[in-house]
Amino acid sequence: MTDDLTRTIARSVWHGWGDPAERHTLPSHAWAFLEREIGASPLASRDLPVALADVVLPEPALTASARAALEAVVGAPQVRDDHATRVEHAGGKSFPDLVRIRRGDGSHAPDVVVFPGSPEEVQRVVEVCSEHEIALVPFGGGTSVVGGVSALRGRFAAAVTLDLRRLTAVPAIDPVSRVATLQAGLRGPEVEAALRPHGLTLGHYPQSHQEATIGGYVATRSAGQASTGYGRVDEMVLGARLATPAGELRLDAHAPASAAGPRLLDLVVGSEGALGVITEATVRVTAYPNATARGAWAFPTMAAAVEALRELAQRHGDDTLPDVCRVSDPRETQVSLTLAGAIGGRLLSYLRRRGQTDPVLGIFLWEGDSRVRVEQRRLGFASVMRRHGAVRLPAAVAGAWQRGRFSGPYLRDELLDHRVLAETLETATTWERLVPTYERVRDALLAQFAAQGTPAVVQCHISHVYAVGASLYFTCVARALADPVEQWLRVKAAASDAIVSTGATITHHHAVGTDHLPWLTAEVGELGVEVLRSVKVTLDPVGVLNPGKLVPPA
Amino acid sequence: MTDDLTRTIARSVWHGWGDPAERHTLPSHAWAFLEREIGASPLASRDLPVALADVVLPEPALTASARAALEAVVGAPQVRDDHATRVEHAGGKSFPDLVRIRRGDGSHAPDVVVFPGSPEEVQRVVEVCSEHEIALVPFGGGTSVVGGVSALRGRFAAAVTLDLRRLTAVPAIDPVSRVATLQAGLRGPEVEAALRPHGLTLGHYPQSHQEATIGGYVATRSAGQASTGYGRVDEMVLGARLATPAGELRLDAHAPASAAGPRLLDLVVGSEGALGVITEATVRVTAYPNATARGAWAFPTMAAAVEALRELAQRHGDDTLPDVCRVSDPRETQVSLTLAGAIGGRLLSYLRRRGQTDPVLGIFLWEGDSRVRVEQRRLGFASVMRRHGAVRLPAAVAGAWQRGRFSGPYLRDELLDHRVLAETLETATTWERLVPTYERVRDALLAQFAAQGTPAVVQCHISHVYAVGASLYFTCVARALADPVEQWLRVKAAASDAIVSTGATITHHHAVGTDHLPWLTAEVGELGVEVLRSVKVTLDPVGVLNPGKLVPPA
Repeated sequence: MTDDLTRTIARSVWHGWGDPAERHTLPSHAWAFLEREIGASPLASRDLPVALADVVLPEPALTASARAALEAVVGAPQVRDDHATRVEHAGGKSFPDLVRIRRGDGSHAPDVVVFPGSPEEVQRVVEVCSEHEIALVPFGGGTSVVGGVSALRGRFAAAVTLDLRRLTAVPAIDPVSRVATLQAGLRGPEVEAALRPHGLTLGHYPQSHQEATIGGYVATRSAGQASTGYGRVDEMVLGARLATPAGELRLDAHAPASAAGPRLLDLVVGSEGALGVITEATVRVTAYPNATARGAWAFPTMAAAVEALRELAQRHGDDTLPDVCRVSDPRETQVSLTLAGAIGGRLLSYLRRRGQTDPVLGIFLWEGDSRVRVEQRRLGFASVMRRHGAVRLPAAVAGAWQRGRFSGPYLRDELLDHRVLAETLETATTWERLVPTYERVRDALLAQFAAQGTPAVVQCHISHVYAVGASLYFTCVARALADPVEQWLRVKAAASDAIVSTGATITHHHAVGTDHLPWLTAEVGELGVEVLRSVKVTLDPVGVLNPGKLVPPA
Repeated sequence: MTDDLTRTIARSVWHGWGDPAERHTLPSHAWAFLEREIGASPLASRDLPVALADVVLPEPALTASARAALEAVVGAPQVRDDHATRVEHAGGKSFPDLVRIRRGDGSHAPDVVVFPGSPEEVQRVVEVCSEHEIALVPFGGGTSVVGGVSALRGRFAAAVTLDLRRLTAVPAIDPVSRVATLQAGLRGPEVEAALRPHGLTLGHYPQSHQEATIGGYVATRSAGQASTGYGRVDEMVLGARLATPAGELRLDAHAPASAAGPRLLDLVVGSEGALGVITEATVRVTAYPNATARGAWAFPTMAAAVEALRELAQRHGDDTLPDVCRVSDPRETQVSLTLAGAIGGRLLSYLRRRGQTDPVLGIFLWEGDSRVRVEQRRLGFASVMRRHGAVRLPAAVAGAWQRGRFSGPYLRDELLDHRVLAETLETATTWERLVPTYERVRDALLAQFAAQGTPAVVQCHISHVYAVGASLYFTCVARALADPVEQWLRVKAAASDAIVSTGATITHHHAVGTDHLPWLTAEVGELGVEVLRSVKVTLDPVGVLNPGKLVPPA
C-alpha cells in the first residue's frame, strides 16, 4: 500500500520544485486576492525559465588527473559532466537559486558530479578531492533553501558535487530497540517504505519529504511537520558515519544516552557537508501509528493561541499536546481561508458570528498506538482550547491541510512564472519572547518590502512547539522587482537583523548554508566560531568540503 | 517548608561521603548476610581514617608571582592553602579516592584552592593559570566517582583547585518560558530552594543531589533518579557560560531548538573542566508537581521486567511510563529485601507463594500537574505490569526507597571501616542488547573478584529508561584485599572491557574523568579523540585545564 508518506515522485526538475506533473495553478479568486493586496496579477505571457540548453555553465576546470582519480574510485560512468547533470546540481531551491537558474545563470554548477555507490567509495572520493584540492559539495535531495548545495569553489579551481542517490541500502533494522541504520541517500518516502513492513516510521516529514534524504536531514539538523510529537532529527540520531579527508568519523555506540564526554555526534548533526559527508545514520524509529485524530480550532488572538499551546507543552506527564501543531497568525489564516474559496469564506463568516474578526487558525494532528489514548488526548485538548476562547472548526479543515502538506513549494514556481516573489524564513525563541519576536520580524519584513515599493503579504505560523518555546515560520509574497534576488536579499537581511536582535536563533530548521552565514557569529560568538573552525581544520585540513557554507571565514 | 529536595547538609567530610552525622551503621542481619555471602564480618576495632593532620600533602610548588596574580583577582582571603582546605580538595568520592585519603595519601591535593566570587573572576583565574602554566582543577560538589576532581598536575609544577561554592546567584528565572539561569556553584538543594517559590523544579536528583552542583551536572552530562521523566541534564540545558583561557564561550541563544550548525553547547555539556569552567547554566525547569504516585511490583524474571519497561518506553503519545523507574536484578532484590529485615522476609515469602522464586523488584514513581492524569498513568501501568506477570507489592516499598534515596553512599564509609570494598559502575545500551550486556558485565565482575580470592555480591539495577534502551547500574561488595585500590582497578578494567566489547557506552552518567579515559577511544574512535583534542587546543592552548581527565593523551 502506498500513501502520501511512501509515494515517491520524480527527482526535482532543474528549474523549480519537485515533479512539474504535481504542480497546480492558482485559482482566479487567489489572483484577485493578490491583485487587491500587493498589486500582482497573472501575466498573459508567462515569464518562463530559459531552455535547459541555454543555461550558461562555468568552463570546466577539473584536471585530467583528478578526473582519472575519481573514475578510479567510482568507475567512469559514475563521473558525469553532461550539461543536464551539471545544471541539475547547480543549486538548491531557495528563491535566489530558482531565479538565477530560471534566467540561465548556472555559475554555481559543479565541474562534474560523482555518484559513489557505498560509504567506502564516498570516503575515497573525499580523499581524492582533498589530495587534488577540489571543492567537494555533498548533494542529497537538493532541497536546501539556504544555498547549502551550490557548488561554490572557494579558493579552488574546480568543484565536484557528490550525489548520494546510490546510497540507499538499509544496513540494519533492530525492531526490538526500534533503531534503524539507513544510508544517507534514502529519500523520505524510501525511508518510510523501508520501515513500513516492520510496522515502523521515522516520524520525520518536512515539507521537502518527497525529495529530501535522511543524510540531508541529519546534515541540516532538520525538523519535520510532526516533530512536536516525534522529536527533531537531532533527538532521533544515535549514530552516524562521516567521511572526511582525515578519515572516517564513526560514532555508533549502542547506547540511548551517554556521559562519555561531549556528544561528538552533535558536531555531525548540522555539519552541512562542511565537516564531512554523512554516509549513514542510525536513528530511533517509532511504531507506525494505528490511531490518528485531527482537529481544527480558531483562536480569538495570536496571544490566546500561544497561551494555549504553552500550557499544553509545559504540562509534565501529560502528552495531550498534538504531534502536529500548526497555528497561523491572523494574516495567514485570512490568506488560507481566502485561497480555499467558498468554503473558506463560510468559515470566516461563521467565526465572525462567533465574535472572531481576526481569527487565528490552528491545525492539530494526534498519532499513537492506542485509539483510546488518542481520543483521550483529543478530548483533553478540546477542553483546554475552550478555556482559551478557541472555537472548534470541522476536522476536515485539518484534513485539507494534511492532504496538501507537501505541495506548498510548487506555488512558488507558479508565482515566479508571473513575476511574483514568494519566499519563507523561520526562527524559534522562548515563550516569553515569542509574540514580541513575531511582531518585530513581521514588521521588519513589511517595512523592507514597502521601502522597495513592493507591498507584501507577510504571514506567519507556529509549527514546532517545545516546553520552553516555539518556532515562527514566515511566508512573504510580493511583486518581484527587475532584480528579485537583490530585492529578497535586502528583505532577508532586515529580517535576520531583527531575529538576531531579539536573541532568537537565526534558523530553527533550515540550516546555515550561505544565506545565514553572516548572522552565525551573533548567535555562537567569535569563540564559538573559532571552535567550529578548529573542528573543520581537524577533519578537513585543506578546506575542500562545501566551501562558503556553515563556517564563517576567518 | 523544607523537604528532602531542599534540605541542605554540611559540605562533605574529607575522608568520606557527605555529613558524618547522616551516616548509619549496618544492622546485624546485614552483617550476617555479608558473612554468609562474601565471608566479611565486622571488625572489633574499626579500620578508621588517619587523623586529618596526618594526611601527607605534596610540597607546595606555586610560585609567589602566580599566587600574587591569583590574589589580585579574588583577594588574598580567597586563596587558601591551609592543610584542611587542601585535604578537602584532594579528590572526589570514588572508592580509590576514599581508600587513598583515609590512608593519609593526599598526593592529589592542589597547592592552593581559590574561591572566586563571580563568572568574571573565574574567567580571570583561568587566564592567570594559563599565563603562569598552572594546572587548574574545577571543583563543584566534589562528588566525582571517576577521578574528575583530583588535582593532577600533568606537565605542570603546581595545581590550583577552583572551588565554585561562591557562585550561587540566580541571575534569571523566566516563569513564562520556564527557564532558569543558575550560577554553577548552586548545590542540588539550593537549586530546588531557589525554584520552589516560583512553583518550579529542576527535576534532576542524582544520588549526589545533596552535595553536587548544577555546574557539575552540566560538566558531567549527568542523569538524575527522575531523568526518565524529566530528562537528562543534556536535554535540559539551553545555554551556558564557559570560562576558558581563549576567552569566555557564551552560548545563550533564547531558543528551544536551532538548526544553526552543530550544537556547540553539546561540547560544553560533558566538558568535565577540561575544556573550560562552567560558570552559569540556563536550563529548562518544570512546574513543581502537585500530584505524585508510587508503586512497587515484582517481576518473575529480568527479561519480563525489561519487556514491560520497553513496551511502555516505546509507546507513542502515551506517557504511562513512570518518572522514576528502578528495576533491580534478582540479586539486588534479594539483597535489598534481606537488608530490610523482617518486612523484607515477609515480602520474599509472599512472592514465593505467588510463584516468584527469584523476584525482580521494581520501584516506580509518577509526578505531574494533575492528580487525575497521574492516577490514569498509574492504572494504565498496572495493567501492563499484570500482562507481564508482575505481582503488585505495597506502595510503601517504593516510599522506603524514596526516603533513603540519597543515603546509599554512606554505607561505603561504614563498610570501609570494616575493610569491605563497595563500589559501583554503570553503562547503557539498546533494548536488544540489554540482557546480554547485563549478563556479560555481571559475569566479568564476578569472575574478576573470584580470581582475586574475594567472592563478591554483584547486583544490578536498571534506573534510566529510554525508547531505544536503558541503563545498567552495578554495585559490588567484597572483602577488601591489602591493596583495595589495585583490587578494584582490576575488577573495573575487566568490567570496562566487557562493556566496550558489547558496544555499550563506557559511562551512562558518571562521566569519563581519569577512570574511563582508557576506554574512551574505543567508544568515539581515534578521529573522535582528535576532534576532542582540537577543541581542547582551541579553548585551552597551554593545556592547563584539568590535566589527565576526559581527553586521552596524544
